Order: sequence, then C-alpha cells, then structure tokens
Amino acid sequence: MQTNLPEILRHRRQKLAEIIDLPAVLWSGSSSPRNFPANTFPHRANSHFLYFAGIPLQNAAIRLESGNLQLFIDDPHPSSALWHGETPNREEIAAKIGADEAKTMAELANYLEDVATLPVQDATTWTQQTQLLDRFILPKTQLEGIDLELAKAIVSLRLTHDAAALIELRKAAVVSVTAHKAGMAATSSAKQESEVRAAMEAVIMAENMTTAYTSIVTVHGEVLHNNHYYHSLQPGDLLLADVGAETQTGWAADITRTWPVSGKFSSTQKDIYDIVLAAHDACIQNIAPGVEYAEIHLLAATIIAEGLVNLGILQGKPEDLVKMDLHALFFPHGIGHLLGLDVHDMEDLGDIAGYDQGRSRSSRFGLSYLRLNRPLRPGMLVTIEPGFYQVPAILNDPKTRSQYQYLVNWERLEQFADVRGIRIEDDVLVTESGSEVLTAALPTETSAIEDLLNANFS
Amino acid sequence: MQTNLPEILRHRRQKLAEIIDLPAVLWSGSSSPRNFPANTFPHRANSHFLYFAGIPLQNAAIRLESGNLQLFIDDPHPSSALWHGETPNREEIAAKIGADEAKTMAELANYLEDVATLPVQDATTWTQQTQLLDRFILPKTQLEGIDLELAKAIVSLRLTHDAAALIELRKAAVVSVTAHKAGMAATSSAKQESEVRAAMEAVIMAENMTTAYTSIVTVHGEVLHNNHYYHSLQPGDLLLADVGAETQTGWAADITRTWPVSGKFSSTQKDIYDIVLAAHDACIQNIAPGVEYAEIHLLAATIIAEGLVNLGILQGKPEDLVKMDLHALFFPHGIGHLLGLDVHDMEDLGDIAGYDQGRSRSSRFGLSYLRLNRPLRPGMLVTIEPGFYQVPAILNDPKTRSQYQYLVNWERLEQFADVRGIRIEDDVLVTESGSEVLTAALPTETSAIEDLLNANFS
Repeated sequence: MQTNLPEILRHRRQKLAEIIDLPAVLWSGSSSPRNFPANTFPHRANSHFLYFAGIPLQNAAIRLESGNLQLFIDDPHPSSALWHGETPNREEIAAKIGADEAKTMAELANYLEDVATLPVQDATTWTQQTQLLDRFILPKTQLEGIDLELAKAIVSLRLTHDAAALIELRKAAVVSVTAHKAGMAATSSAKQESEVRAAMEAVIMAENMTTAYTSIVTVHGEVLHNNHYYHSLQPGDLLLADVGAETQTGWAADITRTWPVSGKFSSTQKDIYDIVLAAHDACIQNIAPGVEYAEIHLLAATIIAEGLVNLGILQGKPEDLVKMDLHALFFPHGIGHLLGLDVHDMEDLGDIAGYDQGRSRSSRFGLSYLRLNRPLRPGMLVTIEPGFYQVPAILNDPKTRSQYQYLVNWERLEQFADVRGIRIEDDVLVTESGSEVLTAALPTETSAIEDLLNANFS
Repeated sequence: MQTNLPEILRHRRQKLAEIIDLPAVLWSGSSSPRNFPANTFPHRANSHFLYFAGIPLQNAAIRLESGNLQLFIDDPHPSSALWHGETPNREEIAAKIGADEAKTMAELANYLEDVATLPVQDATTWTQQTQLLDRFILPKTQLEGIDLELAKAIVSLRLTHDAAALIELRKAAVVSVTAHKAGMAATSSAKQESEVRAAMEAVIMAENMTTAYTSIVTVHGEVLHNNHYYHSLQPGDLLLADVGAETQTGWAADITRTWPVSGKFSSTQKDIYDIVLAAHDACIQNIAPGVEYAEIHLLAATIIAEGLVNLGILQGKPEDLVKMDLHALFFPHGIGHLLGLDVHDMEDLGDIAGYDQGRSRSSRFGLSYLRLNRPLRPGMLVTIEPGFYQVPAILNDPKTRSQYQYLVNWERLEQFADVRGIRIEDDVLVTESGSEVLTAALPTETSAIEDLLNANFS
C-alpha cells in the first residue's frame, strides 16, 4: 500500500469530492493514558482519518475539500529526539501522503468555517473537536446536518474496497490464518486458554501487527463476548477461537474456528459442527452481487433449524421454526458484518453503514442482532459466521422452556451437553462473479482440523 | 493475594484512616473505546482504586471513611448474561472485597459531601467525577486542598509495600524473568525485533497477565522510548529489551536486558557493558534503609564516568566529570524509579510520590530526569537501571561537541560505534538489612547471557 500512497489517497478524496462539495476535517485522535500520562495504550488512529490520511498519525487532522488535502500536525518538540529518535517532520509526512499543504495544529482554527466532521472515539480529542468547532458533535446515529451528510458520503466510499485496501485486507487475512494454525498447534501442550491465546497473538505481534479486537479464546464459546482466558483445557472441551489481525495501517481480519482440545471431535460435537459448517458453506456459495445479506442470514438460520430437526433437537418445518425464531435459541446473533478498517466496519456511525437507507433493526429476537442489512455489491467484504451455542441464560429461562416445550426436545438436547459453543467464521469478498473467501487457507472441515491438531500430538 | 483479600484491604484502609479523617471516593474508571464503542482497549482500573478495592472492577467507585468501605457498582444488565455469561452481582463483589455496604452507582451522588478524590486517567470517567462532585479536579501536581491531602496520605501508604503486595510483585517478577529468557531463546531464529517482542509477550499473555507498559525491544536502544519493532536484526547488533509483566490485580515488574544478536558480545560491546554492569551492581550493593536514592544515582554516574575514563573516552577526574554532567552525555536518564501498581509508581500524581517533601527536580541536565529523590525505607521497591547510549541528538550537537571538545575523546568514541544502547535494569526491594533483587533469577553477566543465547544456537 505504501508504494503509491499519495495516488491512492488522492483517488479516495477525489471520489469523496464527487459526492459532496462541503469541506471536511477529520481528526486522528491521540493515545489514551493507561494508568499515568506517560504510560498509554497503543495509539489507534480514527478509521475515517486513516482512510484518507493512509498512516496512523497522532495529534493530527486533515482537511478535505474539492479533492485537496491539507495536513495539520506539529513538528516533534526538539527534545523529542532524545526520547523518540529522529522522527519525520511535517513536510516529510506531507510528502509521504501527498498532502497539498502542511500546517501546524494551531493553524487549524483558521480553516474550520462550515466544515463537517465525524466524532473521534477518544474523549480528549472529542473535547478538542467540540471546542475548536464551537459546536456539539453528536456521536453515532445522532449525527445530523452536514456531519450526517459527510458520514453518508464516507460510508458510500468505504462500503466497497479499492485495490489498495484489498492488499492490506489480504495481508491481515494471511497472518490471521497463520495465527489460528499456531493456536491449533499449541493446544495439545496447553493447560489453559491463555496459552493458546498467547500462541495465536504472538504470530500477529511477530508480524508487527496488532489484534483488530480483543481475542476470544475459550472453552466456553457459549459466552459470546468472552474475554477471559483462565479456564483450564479439558480433553472433552471444544475450544472456540475468534482472533484477527490488523495491519499497521489499520485494516482488519476476523476469523473464528472451533476445535476439540483432545484432537478429535466427539460424535455429538461433529454432528452439530457439521450443521454449522453446512450453514457456513451455503451462505458463502450464495454470496453474490445483488443478493440481500439479510437473506443470507435467514439461509443460515434455516439450515441450522433443519439440521437440528434432523438431529431430533427441534421439531417442525425448518421454515416455520425460523419464523418463530426457534433457530435463535441456539444462533442468537447475526450471520456477520462489514469488515474493513474496523472489525465491525464503520460501527462508530451506528447503523448508517450497516443498514441501507430506510431500513432499521428488526425487533424480532432472531433478527435484531443482524449488523448488516443491504444488498451486496462487488468490493464489499463481509464475515460469514454461523454458530451454535447453548447459552444458559436463554435455554434455562422458564419462559422459554414453557413457550417452546413442544418444539424443542429438551431430553434429546441433553445428549449434546458437550457442545457448548461452536462458531465458524470467514472473511468473504463480494466479487463481480460471486465471492472470494480471503481466509480460505484455513480449513473448516472436521477431518482437516483434526489433521492439523494431530500433527502436534506425537 | 485473593485468600485474605477482605483482611488485606481492611488493613490498608485502617492505615489510611490513621493518617486522614476525611472521607474519600475513588473511581475505578472504565475501558476506553479503540475505534468504535464496542471495541475497547483492555480495561485498566485506576491504581489508587485497585489498592483499596483489590480487584479491577469497571464503572465502580469506593468510598473510604474511618476504615469503612462502601462499594458503588451496578448489577449487570439482565441481557448481559447472553453476551458476557453469568457475572457476580453487587453483593457477591462486596463480599469478595469485604465491603461494609454495597450500593448502586446512582446512589453515589448522596455520599459525596466534602469527599476528597483523585482524578482518574480516562477522560470519560474524569468528566463524570467533575460533574458529580460539581468541582474541577485538577490533575497531577496541581492537586490542592483535601485532594492533595488525600494524595499525600495514599502516597505515604503506597511508598512501602505490604506482604500481600509483595506476593503479587514477586509473581510479576518471576513471569518477567521467564519472558526475558524466552526473548533470548528466540533471538537466534528471529529476523526482526517484533519476533523477539512476540516471544517475550507471549510468555506474559500465557500466564494471563498483561505488559505493565509498552515494551521496548530494539536494536536501537539509543532511542530511549523506542516503541517500534520493525528493524531487522543484524549479527553485530545489540538488542535492548525492556519488558515487564503486570499481574491481574495490577502489580508490575520492570526488567531490561541487553544482549548480542550474534550470541557473542564484541570486545567493545563487552567493555561498555561491563561498565554499566559495574554501576548496576554497585548501586544494588549500596541500597539500604536511610540511603538517599539521589546518592545511588550519583554513584552510578560516577562509576560510568570512571569506566569511560579508563576506556579513554572521557578525560578527567570522574567526580569532576559528574559535576559537569559529562556522564549524562551517555547516561541521560535517572537511575530508576518507584515500582508498584504503576511501573513508575504513582506518577499520575506528578512528583508527590517521587520527591520527598520540600524537594523538587533539579535543573541540571544530569539530574533533571531523576524520578525518585527520597531516603530509602524498608518495603520500598525501586528499579536500578543504569545505561549507556550514543544518542545522535546529544552527541552530534555542535554546541556539545565544542563545549566538551577537551573532555571527550571523540576519535576514541568512534571505536565504540557498535554500542548504540545498553541498559541493565532490575527490581530491588529495600529490606531492613539492605536489599533483595526480586528479578535476580535473570543473569546480568555477559558470560551467563552468552550461555543462555548459545543454548539455542545449535
């Protein structure tokens, strides 16, 4: 991506200028202190800034108007060379990203008339934004006026990825695949979830990348956002690992695999796994331009319901069960989301990116967590991540039990107690002719996963 | 530490009550968003909160008065069980930490009259603090009134570590030692700094700990705060690794070692390394109750100056050279700092912890970066971290060159071009009888380090 950075960025802002003719200022944000000011979390530049500035600058802003780029950043303090070495100055940075002008942050105040902006995530920079613009910048879905106009214009660009972005997204996918293979390799000798996580994140860190989100590596996959790693690994457990890399310029991957700690799926685990995999494969086969993503979600729901009927866990016609949200007892989240500079791409804007104009979240339990509801277009990158979970908070709810007493065979379900959580997630690019799985190098079939695991059980 | 947590915490707040009789409220803080609200940096609770609450709660506060502990925290939202599993409720948390009362966050507003507080690091919680208290809470050294009184009281407790803290600090030290050994083991096959960093941090992550600060792992040790990891490793390079673990309850270690990428120090590298090591050893030998830490700093400076005189790099009497800050051309930072819940312990309060009453930073270049200036007391944990660096910003400064033209043998110095940066850092506990090095299990001598490196060169 670095080679033609000025050209890539010029192209992006020219496309923006074709959509809106108002000036926009985007802030990079700054690093947040961890426990004292000099000890910060790693800096993560705002994604909209990254899209147009290309590199993760700190304490910087860019102004875009009619395809022109002004960079605002201060030169490093002279004493900085002692602590941080020689760092590029304003003119060098401007040259690297192809800025038309380069000015100090203090000068930014003179270029803010009638500019649109988007709120950054760090509260300190957000306060600066509001003070400098002398107006309140509303977060997320409450955006209004020119800010909303800017958000929609940027969304329309970022919804589909250009060639430069795809180079980075492919890099993130490759490293994430390697991380998952390392996690499988580490499982046989690991005693605790944290050891598998460490093996996976070490691959990402060794490539000088970061994780795109807090990893999930757990034998309790039924806890959907499980960010603990203290459970010991038992031979009968399934380990669910949802780990993805982010490149240095901010582009993400997002992969989940689920594998048996012992090296071999039990027959009950394989039965359920193969249902989730059938849903995964069918969704990917059906991805193509023009297809509604919500239909892909319902396809997964139907296949999961059908599989559970075949196993005797659900009773009824799959289509009817889906209409009653029976699938959501076991698959309570959406089939996936947009992927790009953010792992849930542009979720900082609420549903502006995820939901097509005029659409909003369903109130149905089986649809309300769907993060993307748009017709697919070539260049969109989405995740496909069906799952099966036995969530105690859902399945042990007396109301659920009585409401569905004739549709769920609860006794039969008990025979699948060793399947707490399974998810299979890949990153799928919509192409002109259908789709391409960027993460296809990582196997999904039980036999192939067992082969990878058992290569290390000698 | 968990076993007697209520008792440990009761003892700490009783000691606080012996010093001040005003009520205090401490906030935990909350996690900061990374690129969108649901994707956060890991939560790191405020250190003062951790000291009295014992566990890293989020969105919580504690009120301390006369040895009593009130906990303020909201129960998890009912829907939370779906995403986060079953989590402890308010009463269970209160029992775990031995709180006398447990209330909702909304109730906190009724308990804020005349309370002292300390500002948290995350800007969002800080805004809540100021709004709830209806007054401005000044950061760091600008603290005043009852907040300053509270800060001084907490500092007087946290300056020396109780037995429970030492258990955690020893755990952090053990894991950090293992991480450094893993870094040495990974060096022979690593092509880039990031690979060694990954091997080190993987050890920490596998233990379900975090790094206490952003790791420095670099062949450019002369850049003091070098947080890049992209340089390739060349056979003649020295690799400087400053990496430390933090336990789950927030207690830190801080270790630096410098080793040759090739597995063997060159003669020039060994010459300089042994000077730094001599300073390191002498400082540790001289640590004892009643000793002024600033004297330890000057001891290191003198030994480094003497060593450089012996090598023909400096010319003059070591004591005179130190008075002229000649040592600081090569050793521009302080000999170390307090270590505890923060890697620079209590640096969120500026120099209140680091500098004894009535003392302030020197304006001398050779002393201004000293972070600790107090007489040592049993139970204090400090780092000892002498170094030698060839910082271009210092040594290539024409003013420096002309000012010191007769005191530095610049031609002789050029023969040591393969020594860009060396630091040796250990964590030293002041004991009744002298000191104990918590990180002593990691060798410092060149031969022992070479043995560790070469065990992996087969």
